Amino acid sequence: MAHISFEESIEILNKNLPTKKRTKKVSLQESLGYVLANDIVASFNNPAYPTASMDGYAIKYSDIDKKIKIIGSNPAGSFEYDTLKDGEAIKTFTGSFMPDGADTLVPIENVEVNGATLKVITKVNKGFSVRSVGEDFRENEVIIPKNTKITFAEIGVMASLNKPIVEVIDKAKVAIIATGSEILDLGERGNIAQIHSSNNYTLSALGKSLGYDMTNVGLVKDNKEEIKTKILNSLEVNDIVVTTGGVSVGDFDFVKEIAGEFEVLFHGVNIKPGQWVMIAKVGEKYIVSLPGFPYSSFVTFLLYVVPLADKISGFNSLTTIKAKLRDKFKKVNPKTQFVAVNIAYENGEFIVDVRDKKSGSSGILTNLVNNFALMKLDAGFYELSKDSSVDIIIYNKEFL
Amino acid sequence: MAHISFEESIEILNKNLPTKKRTKKVSLQESLGYVLANDIVASFNNPAYPTASMDGYAIKYSDIDKKIKIIGSNPAGSFEYDTLKDGEAIKTFTGSFMPDGADTLVPIENVEVNGATLKVITKVNKGFSVRSVGEDFRENEVIIPKNTKITFAEIGVMASLNKPIVEVIDKAKVAIIATGSEILDLGERGNIAQIHSSNNYTLSALGKSLGYDMTNVGLVKDNKEEIKTKILNSLEVNDIVVTTGGVSVGDFDFVKEIAGEFEVLFHGVNIKPGQWVMIAKVGEKYIVSLPGFPYSSFVTFLLYVVPLADKISGFNSLTTIKAKLRDKFKKVNPKTQFVAVNIAYENGEFIVDVRDKKSGSSGILTNLVNNFALMKLDAGFYELSKDSSVDIIIYNKEFL
Repeated sequence: MAHISFEESIEILNKNLPTKKRTKKVSLQESLGYVLANDIVASFNNPAYPTASMDGYAIKYSDIDKKIKIIGSNPAGSFEYDTLKDGEAIKTFTGSFMPDGADTLVPIENVEVNGATLKVITKVNKGFSVRSVGEDFRENEVIIPKNTKITFAEIGVMASLNKPIVEVIDKAKVAIIATGSEILDLGERGNIAQIHSSNNYTLSALGKSLGYDMTNVGLVKDNKEEIKTKILNSLEVNDIVVTTGGVSVGDFDFVKEIAGEFEVLFHGVNIKPGQWVMIAKVGEKYIVSLPGFPYSSFVTFLLYVVPLADKISGFNSLTTIKAKLRDKFKKVNPKTQFVAVNIAYENGEFIVDVRDKKSGSSGILTNLVNNFALMKLDAGFYELSKDSSVDIIIYNKEFL
Repeated sequence: MAHISFEESIEILNKNLPTKKRTKKVSLQESLGYVLANDIVASFNNPAYPTASMDGYAIKYSDIDKKIKIIGSNPAGSFEYDTLKDGEAIKTFTGSFMPDGADTLVPIENVEVNGATLKVITKVNKGFSVRSVGEDFRENEVIIPKNTKITFAEIGVMASLNKPIVEVIDKAKVAIIATGSEILDLGERGNIAQIHSSNNYTLSALGKSLGYDMTNVGLVKDNKEEIKTKILNSLEVNDIVVTTGGVSVGDFDFVKEIAGEFEVLFHGVNIKPGQWVMIAKVGEKYIVSLPGFPYSSFVTFLLYVVPLADKISGFNSLTTIKAKLRDKFKKVNPKTQFVAVNIAYENGEFIVDVRDKKSGSSGILTNLVNNFALMKLDAGFYELSKDSSVDIIIYNKEFL
């Protein structure tokens, strides 16, 4: 079975990306991290009327050199005095509307008050501290375009627009099933040849931190019927079912037979790690079978599951940037390779190295701890000199 | 009342940072985003024994040119054959232990099998595809040091270490109370002078996205007793109680009187926006009163609430980087100023500008939408030329 190249695998993936998005309505508070399904349009001007932006006295600028009569006060949120005549002042508070006829707000500390009259001691310009109508936004203006990822700022803007309910693109639903008779669940005891499962925890946490709706289905032993049942059940309520383990050529690899009942996009890519990755399409849903080794399953999740889940969710989780190699690097494997690197932002540039990273097999998960990213190296044998520019896939921005 | 400088305010803040951290035990799955309270130490070697990293035949390297007898197979997770003699091979699967005596794994595709014997067609080096004992980690090794923020990678490593329960530093508990008679809750109808509250939603979402344990207490009208009750009740179960509105010098500013019953660290800083910020310390807890304008409350939350909440939570949310100004910038206000800017990573450097940002009062929240960051400008009047290097506070890394 010949492996396809990495570039071919990405081309096939891109041709088979999901085309449908689900939308749903959520409360404003729940909308953080989702993507907007519709434009957010203002239904009113903000401010609706000229508004005081400090505490002070609303006056006509033409009176600024005169003795001015204080006729009353408009606390924030009330509006007792709606008109101001020549020679009059109304005490006006931050956020209150300016009375009709007033054009300037004189701060409290700029005036001298004597009983019911005031004199401006420190002058201000005409229009001082008055927010004009629609300064923040105008009626019918598109304030936030659809397909925007909702951060705290969008939530604040939607709150001020009085939008308690938001229509969003539903996040990709992704299930993780770890297969293999050699793996034990947390706390479970087994024989000397068994190891504790990490893939389902790692990938569930990775997917969660990228913003997907993750289900950690758990472990299934190498039993064809049981694996098949779990995959099919999970497929009913998820967009993507990810399995780890059981996709190489060994006798106990049942998963590929199950997935083989559907349209297999590819099985086997010329990459290191993760060559035995397989993607099957089942209508608008996907089964992605990743290798069992922790580092391999992590890399192939990023390369093949993330683009599918991102497309469904409406956002982009990964960024590729250029970085400089701190040390020379010799590429001793002919495949397209993905190497865990330390990354730092130093003196205005991104620097990567593999210092203190254990080289060795794809079983090594500890290389992913700390400030790390993934260096992508094209196929072939070659040596990169110190200071070479390399492609770095960023999936965790904590290092910045 | 003289305002202190920004630098003085930060100095006072740093002298009064919280000194205590709470810890708690959470399940591994819940630990994402918390900070480790203790070192994570391996209690066993991984792998515990030499382990196959591919599917193949375990042999002695000295037999590689001979006809080798296949004596059986060790599926992953079981260990039927524990010893291998000269001239023997045992079929061994990815993740299975190598039998005693075997030193090399020959991949399936490299051999020709005839009944119960095999011949190696494509040779491999001695030790090929065998993971050595402790290759990933060794017993008693500190695998993850305490004070590490837990990402998916740490979760994966802890799963493989069989740590179902993790002791973490508890996240800061922060309550948000919006005050002011001019504000309405989502969906609430009021008079013409009232606006919809956004601060409690904005700041709750900001705090949540930074990783704090946020409580949106909601709105309180300008009623001294009610505000006092809400603040005191919130203080019982939170580390920091944040109010917005009511901290300038106006007649309806009750909040400062309540906070004044405690130790006020400062009230009034020479910054724009947000000059009327006040911090009071109540034992090991804090009341932080922010201005009512949305942009002002956002900036002062970043400047004064985040350092307190980060210290309690054990992590750092903010980064200051250098960026290049795309256009010249004239500073027309003498205070230390925080300006919303667009940020982009272009051709290996960070570029900022204020294009399409509305200049104007601190009521403008829409400037925060999209790829934005905060430019810090030191006090004084001056003009920065195009391409100047400026300090940028990063609190949202989506732009990268």
